[in-house]
Amino acid sequence: MLAKAGVDLHLELHGTRLRAGLTGALREAVRSGRLAPGTRLPATRALAEDLGIARSTVTECYEELVAEGWLNARRGSGTRVADRVQPRRPKPADDPAPRPQHDLEPGAAGYADFPRAPWLASAKRAVGAAPHTAFGYGDPLGRIELRTALSEYLNRVRGVYADPAHLVITSGVHHGLGIAARALRTEGIDTIAVEAFGLDIYRAVLHDENVDIPPLMVDTRGARVSDLGDMVEAGAALLTPAHQFPTGYALAPERRAHVLEWARRTGGVVLEDDYDGEFRYDRRPIGALQGLDPDHVVYFGTASKSIAPALRLAWMVVPERLLPAVAHAKGRVDTVSILDQLTLSDFIRTGAFDRHVRARRLVYRRRRDELAAAVAGRTTGVRLVGMAAGLQAVVSLPAGTEARVLGAASRHGLAVAGLSEFLHPAADPEWPSHDAIVVNFASISDSAWPRAVAALRGILP
Amino acid sequence: MLAKAGVDLHLELHGTRLRAGLTGALREAVRSGRLAPGTRLPATRALAEDLGIARSTVTECYEELVAEGWLNARRGSGTRVADRVQPRRPKPADDPAPRPQHDLEPGAAGYADFPRAPWLASAKRAVGAAPHTAFGYGDPLGRIELRTALSEYLNRVRGVYADPAHLVITSGVHHGLGIAARALRTEGIDTIAVEAFGLDIYRAVLHDENVDIPPLMVDTRGARVSDLGDMVEAGAALLTPAHQFPTGYALAPERRAHVLEWARRTGGVVLEDDYDGEFRYDRRPIGALQGLDPDHVVYFGTASKSIAPALRLAWMVVPERLLPAVAHAKGRVDTVSILDQLTLSDFIRTGAFDRHVRARRLVYRRRRDELAAAVAGRTTGVRLVGMAAGLQAVVSLPAGTEARVLGAASRHGLAVAGLSEFLHPAADPEWPSHDAIVVNFASISDSAWPRAVAALRGILP
Repeated sequence: MLAKAGVDLHLELHGTRLRAGLTGALREAVRSGRLAPGTRLPATRALAEDLGIARSTVTECYEELVAEGWLNARRGSGTRVADRVQPRRPKPADDPAPRPQHDLEPGAAGYADFPRAPWLASAKRAVGAAPHTAFGYGDPLGRIELRTALSEYLNRVRGVYADPAHLVITSGVHHGLGIAARALRTEGIDTIAVEAFGLDIYRAVLHDENVDIPPLMVDTRGARVSDLGDMVEAGAALLTPAHQFPTGYALAPERRAHVLEWARRTGGVVLEDDYDGEFRYDRRPIGALQGLDPDHVVYFGTASKSIAPALRLAWMVVPERLLPAVAHAKGRVDTVSILDQLTLSDFIRTGAFDRHVRARRLVYRRRRDELAAAVAGRTTGVRLVGMAAGLQAVVSLPAGTEARVLGAASRHGLAVAGLSEFLHPAADPEWPSHDAIVVNFASISDSAWPRAVAALRGILP
Repeated sequence: MLAKAGVDLHLELHGTRLRAGLTGALREAVRSGRLAPGTRLPATRALAEDLGIARSTVTECYEELVAEGWLNARRGSGTRVADRVQPRRPKPADDPAPRPQHDLEPGAAGYADFPRAPWLASAKRAVGAAPHTAFGYGDPLGRIELRTALSEYLNRVRGVYADPAHLVITSGVHHGLGIAARALRTEGIDTIAVEAFGLDIYRAVLHDENVDIPPLMVDTRGARVSDLGDMVEAGAALLTPAHQFPTGYALAPERRAHVLEWARRTGGVVLEDDYDGEFRYDRRPIGALQGLDPDHVVYFGTASKSIAPALRLAWMVVPERLLPAVAHAKGRVDTVSILDQLTLSDFIRTGAFDRHVRARRLVYRRRRDELAAAVAGRTTGVRLVGMAAGLQAVVSLPAGTEARVLGAASRHGLAVAGLSEFLHPAADPEWPSHDAIVVNFASISDSAWPRAVAALRGILP
């Protein structure tokens, strides 16, 4: 179409909402560069005639685009395209990296066993029954319903001594760990000893909070906490007492006593990451360290292992003296989904959580047994180490073979992790051989599991 | 019950799960102090006889409590209660502060109109249809489904130019603002000019990221962005161009052009908080500034105003050059609920979001008209100011009366905010009178609204 005065706008109007259509078409013409900066637009009367629409529609459209800044209107010079920067065209999104055929990697992308129906049933009950006030910003520390449900659950299942007022809801343990680090810094603690084997992402969170993280050696009795006595600068220690991650050993009873004694003597703080405490297959799980000394332990638990990471729900139990600093570090507005908090609270209260954990425990126990069978009778040095617990297991390898085994796994479409990937960069290089692979047997679906085990059997020496 | 050797344990065992019951009862006896540190426990055989249970049950229970650290077992000295710190008893939670009778405060606790049924329908579809991989940790920047749905929505409704790759999902604008501040600091920007009227919580977020926040005066044409030229240290400006918060004016067209020109000339960044851009009642909403110059504007939007704060879902659109720093500042694991992200994506894609916003717009327009009627014909100087838009309105007051009006409101159970509460602490004390109250007309329920308006009418001079 051709406007009698000014440029040919080549506008195409679709649908019946004329003004919106005209405004959108003009904006796009400016944005795409078809109408260059400075270009004078047709007079409203001319364009209205051209398009066969009311002049007022064109006037309103011009006014809107002037208000937005796409056009300039100056008395005597008409309406012109404003000066502006040319945006880039959108690029197609990159293809995501292809997933391996058999995914047994810790932190695997998939999580096959999310309890969709019971979770949605809890969501329906929780969202349906929530008072109006539940849909606002809420308590920055978390919904009281969830903190109360967790208080009871953690006491019953993990021996944790948690007043709801001491429970803080977070979006994952790594979120809580960042909060704890910031809180400890305000208390003058800027060195947190960490286990020499652990998650790189946790070390990064602490590092980003400007905390020093000297490594504590790990052996078959867990972290060597007696070394804390020599680390005069360490004011806290991050531990996985129930099931060392990823080596799979429990912190021995005398070491549990030792680290608490250290905390009391020095005013230190134990950060207890109880990531998979619900899952033990040979006996009842060992209770949390926190119950023994709630004044010196910050306890971290999560729904990522017991339900699924997608919930982004975790919790920490905080000693009284650290509560103000933790509350400040968490911020004045909650960042954790309140609907999910209400849903998890119903999920726990109605027993759906217990049922889910019990069902998963049976599946994981069976899978771990099958893993043990697959590993049995190989070359000397190839064996399952660590406790019958958790969501991952460690298969030790003959010294010097880890890289070769990982290479073979990769060639066979099998994703597992090398134990060395979890080693603290500052750990003692004289460390004895720790060649091993870490196998996540929990995230994969039932149907994919047998082929994954077969693939593993195929690449072990 | 009395054990033949050692102390009377006064254990009461309930139910059939004997070992769990015995372990829990013993742990509780130690925790509560009924069994003091050092106390020697009965021999396993004696206790088993006493309780009429198998000795192996008692042995396993003792072993578990030794492993947890509650008991010590030493050859020759039997099993004793370990030394430990006495925890405090839980205190009853404090009563929450009583809510006012009529809550018209910005950021009111309630949110009466959450679309429970359509949201749950979206949750059911989204969670039901999600692939296994959706239940893992996910893309740290947010789910691609939501980023794609928002890209289309923001372009259509707000004129925002957003490639999904540039969209980042956050838990609220204040979360995104903290991320942006950290990213800008790594780019060498440590001063962000903010509007002289605004949210204290946003100023606090920036302050906590060690950013300086000089105030920009605000008048009836929005923030006086021409002052940016004199603030040589300011590398960014946080603005609410569509609807200044809380004064309610739009940033004038020449100021929109001016601030973008400033950004291009100085390499500055505009942080555009488009918190309630969907809601305008007298005409079509003005599009976002971001569309005019996606390379110099970080755009912030939120579901807190259009749906409810409880979702803790917001988004930012980030210029290409800031993406790496923003991604680093957001962290390597997403903290935003992935289920809620999937649900919102369905809510947008199926049109439920548009329907909800349209329905709320009608309600809010009517309420704002009723508010205008309630304010009309009072003392000179009492009038509704700002645009017919958004979720809050400002009622100007005669100079020097704000505190008196707020006092009267409080006595009548009416919660509203004084405009002075939003004033930047470093704003010019020579500022002309700005006595006014800010009234949130959106969060209250339909049934409570008429009485709240009546209460407001009762206290206005």
